[in-house]
Amino acid sequence: LGAACGSATGNSEIIKRQGDPANWASPSGDLASTRHSKLADINTGNVDKLQMVWSQSSGTLRGHEGQPLVITDDGKPMMYMISGWPNIVQALDLSDPDNPKAIWKYVKESDRDESAVPRACCDTVNRGLAYAQGKVIFGTLDGFLIALDAKTGKEAWVVKHAHPDKGETITPAPLIAEDKVLIGFGGNEFAARGRFTAYNIKDGKKLWECSSTGTDKDICITKNTNKANPHYGTTDASIKSYPGDEWQRGGGTSWGFYSYDPELKLVYHSTGNPGLWSPFYRCSFKTHEECNTGKQDNKWSMTIFARKIDTGEAVWAYQMTPFDQWDYDGINENMLADWTIDGKKRKVLVHFDRNGFAYVLDRTDGTLLRANKFVTANWAEKIDMKTGRPVKVKEHSPFGLENNVQACPSAMGGKDQQPCALDPNEPGVAYCPTNNWCMELEPQERSHTQQGTVYVFANVFMYPEKPGTTGKFKKFNVLTGETVWEIPDQYPNWSGALVTDGGLAFYGSLGGDFRAVDRKTGKVLWSRKLGSGIIGNPITYKVGGKQYVSVWSGIGGWIGLPVTAGLDLEDKFGAIGATAMTKAANLDKIPQGGTLYTFRVN
Amino acid sequence: LGAACGSATGNSEIIKRQGDPANWASPSGDLASTRHSKLADINTGNVDKLQMVWSQSSGTLRGHEGQPLVITDDGKPMMYMISGWPNIVQALDLSDPDNPKAIWKYVKESDRDESAVPRACCDTVNRGLAYAQGKVIFGTLDGFLIALDAKTGKEAWVVKHAHPDKGETITPAPLIAEDKVLIGFGGNEFAARGRFTAYNIKDGKKLWECSSTGTDKDICITKNTNKANPHYGTTDASIKSYPGDEWQRGGGTSWGFYSYDPELKLVYHSTGNPGLWSPFYRCSFKTHEECNTGKQDNKWSMTIFARKIDTGEAVWAYQMTPFDQWDYDGINENMLADWTIDGKKRKVLVHFDRNGFAYVLDRTDGTLLRANKFVTANWAEKIDMKTGRPVKVKEHSPFGLENNVQACPSAMGGKDQQPCALDPNEPGVAYCPTNNWCMELEPQERSHTQQGTVYVFANVFMYPEKPGTTGKFKKFNVLTGETVWEIPDQYPNWSGALVTDGGLAFYGSLGGDFRAVDRKTGKVLWSRKLGSGIIGNPITYKVGGKQYVSVWSGIGGWIGLPVTAGLDLEDKFGAIGATAMTKAANLDKIPQGGTLYTFRVN
Ligand SMILES: O=C(O)c1cc(C(=O)O)c2c(n1)C(=O)C(=O)c1cc(C(=O)O)[nH]c1-2
Ligand SMILES: O=C(O)c1cc(C(=O)O)c2c(n1)C(=O)C(=O)c1cc(C(=O)O)[nH]c1-2
Repeated sequence: LGAACGSATGNSEIIKRQGDPANWASPSGDLASTRHSKLADINTGNVDKLQMVWSQSSGTLRGHEGQPLVITDDGKPMMYMISGWPNIVQALDLSDPDNPKAIWKYVKESDRDESAVPRACCDTVNRGLAYAQGKVIFGTLDGFLIALDAKTGKEAWVVKHAHPDKGETITPAPLIAEDKVLIGFGGNEFAARGRFTAYNIKDGKKLWECSSTGTDKDICITKNTNKANPHYGTTDASIKSYPGDEWQRGGGTSWGFYSYDPELKLVYHSTGNPGLWSPFYRCSFKTHEECNTGKQDNKWSMTIFARKIDTGEAVWAYQMTPFDQWDYDGINENMLADWTIDGKKRKVLVHFDRNGFAYVLDRTDGTLLRANKFVTANWAEKIDMKTGRPVKVKEHSPFGLENNVQACPSAMGGKDQQPCALDPNEPGVAYCPTNNWCMELEPQERSHTQQGTVYVFANVFMYPEKPGTTGKFKKFNVLTGETVWEIPDQYPNWSGALVTDGGLAFYGSLGGDFRAVDRKTGKVLWSRKLGSGIIGNPITYKVGGKQYVSVWSGIGGWIGLPVTAGLDLEDKFGAIGATAMTKAANLDKIPQGGTLYTFRVN
Repeated sequence: LGAACGSATGNSEIIKRQGDPANWASPSGDLASTRHSKLADINTGNVDKLQMVWSQSSGTLRGHEGQPLVITDDGKPMMYMISGWPNIVQALDLSDPDNPKAIWKYVKESDRDESAVPRACCDTVNRGLAYAQGKVIFGTLDGFLIALDAKTGKEAWVVKHAHPDKGETITPAPLIAEDKVLIGFGGNEFAARGRFTAYNIKDGKKLWECSSTGTDKDICITKNTNKANPHYGTTDASIKSYPGDEWQRGGGTSWGFYSYDPELKLVYHSTGNPGLWSPFYRCSFKTHEECNTGKQDNKWSMTIFARKIDTGEAVWAYQMTPFDQWDYDGINENMLADWTIDGKKRKVLVHFDRNGFAYVLDRTDGTLLRANKFVTANWAEKIDMKTGRPVKVKEHSPFGLENNVQACPSAMGGKDQQPCALDPNEPGVAYCPTNNWCMELEPQERSHTQQGTVYVFANVFMYPEKPGTTGKFKKFNVLTGETVWEIPDQYPNWSGALVTDGGLAFYGSLGGDFRAVDRKTGKVLWSRKLGSGIIGNPITYKVGGKQYVSVWSGIGGWIGLPVTAGLDLEDKFGAIGATAMTKAANLDKIPQGGTLYTFRVN
């Protein structure tokens, strides 16, 4: 959010930091999750002179998602970074910005739970750390939420937040707002039940916690929830939207990026799929039609929640994919901007969903303003703007046991964890890396109901929509549904985007190419082949009068899991469909890695 | 060797390749192990514009020694590289030299022997691959010598060369000469007995094999061996130079780089320490003096061997450190050049030994021409040029059980595996990364004689000679013993050197800084902080009219073992002395890595 939103709140430290483009102050750069930077030192005119000036290894292999932070404290510019499991944290002093100095390194030594590793559905990734009040705060795959003294790297406090034995693993980055640390976890493929929690940044004490399924009290739903849009569902909606006790394994974990509006004092987080992928078991009825009347929506999976920062109370909750039949987790980031739409000034929330639709909502009350397809999506004709519900296409909706059904996008969605970027001053458009492949999904019999054990029950085969193109980077108008430009890529684009006032957008491909694109034309102006596939999110910062850009390289995530876990690529259904795509995209030739590269114009 | 040596031999392919500076045709660049390149596109005038243009991960962590090869075959420039254990080999097509394309990746899948990992004394490193006749050839830590079809990455032949259960592990790079693949292994700290073997490049058939200890027949010693210098030792010298059957665990493995002179048809390889470090057990007598008369030399450990390429017959053998009391492995590389010395044209061999002396020998017959200290060495006054033997200083010679003795250099030597570079056209000087630390060594009781089990029996504590300086990079005149210039470094310099006709020398530090130095002045002209500590050897090549420089980054080796194996840094004696140095040099803050970086002038 611009300066308009950032004034006079109890949140002043972070607001102040994120207002200074020299920093990369929170996981998404700002609390609004825009991944936009006002820096323009690196620009369309000189980006051809962009050069690597230093590099730092993470000390691990496997997927490197997320991004470092750059924070200036007591006048000293520091970078903090975290690797995937076992989650090594490093602090670099950037005072001599071309020659950073390692100050401390931390990895939790005691009580580690190795069982978290096979319980991470989609690689042992970590999406980053947060910073405030002199503390560096992050989650570990095995469920700890840890605050370190930023100066020394010593533990300030440690809490056990997620429980691998219940299928819960922490991959997301926490968000800090109003002296609270907000975080969820992943685990819908391991029969977890989603929770989103606020801890006191001072001591790690739990302040509130809200589940995604269960009683209204558990979910922090009140009679005021969805007041503006009661058709989204109100009280008493979750438990009866699952058969029997399935809500207890009902998924809805929040493993993506979170956003915060300091004026509205609302935190936004979205939830994932409702547990097992054999839809049949998540419905009390017998047919696709009966399960799609709204009675068996599996609430509140696949939902954007807007919660009051002080209590967790849900002000509104909008479910993108009721009764999910595709694993279209709704967890993708929610970008906040203030735009004039249809002549009216709106505080909007922009959300590119896995299901292939880009949603625009009024973030004050959840009112749906737009829902346009940004990739090929044949599972739904459209989103009914009145009801907010998708008009599903039965032919592309897996349902019956051992009934093989084709659908686009694949379970990995039109876009997965890779966050888009948006310049609040360029109304209507966002810059997004997309997945362009489809799938066949065949629901299988459920053989157990044990939390902490693989809980999927589907054979999934994925394939490129168009041979030779698996990813695109596109500038998309979420108001008109128009693609302004797009760059088709041979390799999947699992990295996030960065957009800068230098007229540039940055992104990386799984082939290892890190690219700078002209925002206006979509022309690739610069490219550099890094050590491994890129699934991290580029950041930018400024030290000593010079702008820098950093990005992780390290193939992994769900799409790269067959490489990082060494799976058999001949297994068509391996890693729930990832192996076939890994093979189709030739990812097996890409070495594992884990290195941060930093660039500036030379 | 220059063109003079390279004519009309059965070795024409490699000679031709190494004669073209566009290639990096064999592990040390050329068969003479000079690590010198005639390329001058990157030079003192433009090296400040040197920039990373691409990078490639190895797919592993732990130490990354050695170097890739660059070979042009059928007009296609290719790079081949190998990682440490499990020894992943990658082939990159450099046709578009700023955007290399991965062609194939290979890692042996069957019959792997994980027991090799804890049996690698000094990290799971690999010092590179060799190329000829369309084959890429390398060893694996667990003892396989493998030839791959360079086009496809498919196995051409595989032989079991070394046996981890006998303490043998392959860390060295093979050398190819006269259609033979030459290779030894490591294992002196595991009671191995050294062997050096020649295989037929066509099919991997063993052609000859010579041990370092045992009968003359085993060692390939004949009555013609050391004819010019019989005082070096001749027939019947090995077995009786050890007590009892100790020669069977007598060490002398050849785990360094090898050299070849195609005119003399001699292959040069050196041998390591004579097994256990408690000298007492390697002598039939009772005192330091009695053990140093020449009767208990533990032959042929610590020896440079010159062998006939066709039969393995030892033409000469010179032992640098008879009856070793410090672990001064003699395996360091032998650089070949043709220089005029004392008015006489000589075919010389230059060898910077672990023991701190830089030797110059006539490589035709082994005649010793010079032996000058290149670092602080208090264990010997000098080398007696008549006898070729060191004049040991008893006070700095560990001997008695539980008798703690100080010595410089430390067991890691004045220089360890990190190869020097030498420009044949700059007579007398070499460019060397040095170790500048000392040790206390306390021999311990021998508790077993089991091959394949740690066989050291000494407490070793190492410390910087001068606090704040642990390494130097120096230009040293081996004829006069004079240091032309030197650069003191905070971090150990475990990387090799490269010297070019651009007036530059390149080297890397364990702190991660990769540097270009003015050969004339020793001024650091350029430096770039890479992802992890550098222990690889820089190479240079030319494609598409542009010169490139590549180097591995990835902390490890003996000095980095405490980091890569996660040892307790409070253990003063850990990793036979490495932990204390790791701590003293702050290496614990350096993350593990495994990435190749490639640079060109932009
Ligand atoms: O349902 C879940 O709880 C859950 C968790 C995660 C995760 O934590 O990384 C992923 C997914 N689902 C998922 O569906 C998915 O596509 C995915 C991709 C990735 C990744 O990092 O590449 N993680 C996850
Ligand atoms: O005695 C042996 O057999 C043997 C083997 C090796 C090796 O194979 O790497 C090393 C050593 N010794 C050794 O003494 C030594 O200092 C050393 C350093 C390194 C390294 O890679 O950093 N290897 C070895």
